[in-house]
Amino acid sequence: MKTVTVYAPATIANLVCGFDVLGLCLNEPYDIMQVTLLDERKVVIDMGDTHLLPSDPALNTAGASLMEMLNEINKNIGFHLTIQKNIKPGSGIGSSAASAAGAAVAANHLLGNIFSKTDLVRFAMAGEKVASGVKHADNVAPCIYGGISLIRSIFPLDIIAISSPSLFVAVVHPQIEVRTSDARQILKKQVLLKDAIKQWGNIGGLVAGFLKNDLDLIGRSLEDVIIEPVRSILIPGFNEIKMNCKKAGALGGGISGSGPSIFMLCKNEIIAADVENEMKNVYDKIGIAYHTYVTTINTQGVRTVNLKHPEFLYSP
Amino acid sequence: MKTVTVYAPATIANLVCGFDVLGLCLNEPYDIMQVTLLDERKVVIDMGDTHLLPSDPALNTAGASLMEMLNEINKNIGFHLTIQKNIKPGSGIGSSAASAAGAAVAANHLLGNIFSKTDLVRFAMAGEKVASGVKHADNVAPCIYGGISLIRSIFPLDIIAISSPSLFVAVVHPQIEVRTSDARQILKKQVLLKDAIKQWGNIGGLVAGFLKNDLDLIGRSLEDVIIEPVRSILIPGFNEIKMNCKKAGALGGGISGSGPSIFMLCKNEIIAADVENEMKNVYDKIGIAYHTYVTTINTQGVRTVNLKHPEFLYSP
Repeated sequence: MKTVTVYAPATIANLVCGFDVLGLCLNEPYDIMQVTLLDERKVVIDMGDTHLLPSDPALNTAGASLMEMLNEINKNIGFHLTIQKNIKPGSGIGSSAASAAGAAVAANHLLGNIFSKTDLVRFAMAGEKVASGVKHADNVAPCIYGGISLIRSIFPLDIIAISSPSLFVAVVHPQIEVRTSDARQILKKQVLLKDAIKQWGNIGGLVAGFLKNDLDLIGRSLEDVIIEPVRSILIPGFNEIKMNCKKAGALGGGISGSGPSIFMLCKNEIIAADVENEMKNVYDKIGIAYHTYVTTINTQGVRTVNLKHPEFLYSP
Repeated sequence: MKTVTVYAPATIANLVCGFDVLGLCLNEPYDIMQVTLLDERKVVIDMGDTHLLPSDPALNTAGASLMEMLNEINKNIGFHLTIQKNIKPGSGIGSSAASAAGAAVAANHLLGNIFSKTDLVRFAMAGEKVASGVKHADNVAPCIYGGISLIRSIFPLDIIAISSPSLFVAVVHPQIEVRTSDARQILKKQVLLKDAIKQWGNIGGLVAGFLKNDLDLIGRSLEDVIIEPVRSILIPGFNEIKMNCKKAGALGGGISGSGPSIFMLCKNEIIAADVENEMKNVYDKIGIAYHTYVTTINTQGVRTVNLKHPEFLYSP
């Protein structure tokens, strides 16, 4: 029976000014997923007993992704999927995307890589729709491509790889719930043209900063005058964390995806450790439980793991 | 008496999706300006008798630019300025910007380049305010820096040089009047968030396309869902020209600045000549007089000219 195991990493969508168009792949945390090819047209999901995600494939982001793929395959095959979920659902660092993207990449590997990366993003977007009600690609694209992705267009799908300097990323996940659908609902349907102009200056600046390895420009461009002012009120301590982290040397950062996680880009590991401490201090003071991560940009995205070295499988 | 002569080139603001934040410098057409240092605190403007621009320095974009500069100089000096105006006012290819930027660069040259390029953009923006009522930098910045400029922010002024492949630019200037102030007034103050998202995908794509030398990406990103649908109705033949030029091989293009000129980026001179023909055909058919230019990206911006070779002075 053909089986493959993959690491499916966390991702940061939006990158402050790039709402719905930019995303970045992290090295940690990551889910571990095992997919086995079946000779029957069905998708079976085994979530273990660690998390309360639905195992009905139509309601599970990984399942929906695989079912979308199966729709385009005229063969009597199916998939059995085991997920070790390390990225907490609702954290804002692409938990649903990791499941959807990891499943698609793993299944494609078993099929001899018959689908392109763009196809895989398309399948994984069907998974995202199960989670948030909206087909968005700003987590699944960087999860599959690695590095930083610009989603220039959804219809037709147009994903641009944006190279970047090696940066460290500090992330804090306060243990509060912000539902993606709620975070979308509080956004206004219209924005001021003058704010939109500021935003497109910053997006141009951020893309140029990454491509030109200009750390100062990256920092100056990490500004959001449209989404952050609305969404940050859902995240206790947001303003204080942002201010303290920038004082500690972070280039800049903001809400990861729709929150509640907050991320900061840092030019080296020492600053990233200081920034992590600032994050901890604020939530210790407020009295909210949290997880923090200090990690780097994952330039590869979802990757297969050699099962002959099973020690990888349980050391997330 | 110290005198300098400069070429002050035309520019294309907005570049379709980058309203108020992107601009590109052309090699042709260009104004020729001669600035002489005076030992008296005044600005004198000699427009010749070719165009009906005001010679009162406070009402002239070049004069306002020089007066803004003089405000920051604590010396008993002034400037005498002669302008040979080849870029027709109201054409939408940065006529006012060329005057404002050319004057600032020339005066700075006479003063031993005491001001930075960012300073010069600031002075020239005061000139732009005279012309359009708004301090915008998307013409004066590329006119001074050359190449393609991203104006990430106006306050504080933050100008990013965007390198690009060598492209040809075809421009048609239909002889109709579109006032910048009118072209601004018809814009809505609010835009749909979903349109703004499309726009920032395209801006990111266009900046990435230039920096990565990706011609297809440049072409796909030259799309404007916000400004062009409103402003293009002021320009007869716009849709037909755009369609025909793209069929003839143009990467893409649109309204230059606030119009009425239309520009198209082309990957080589042969295509640019075909595109120019398509432009001519449409206005010949409609019966509107026009000028066309086929030129390239000017990577230097305003430049001083050696007066020992006066033949340069009258061969625009």
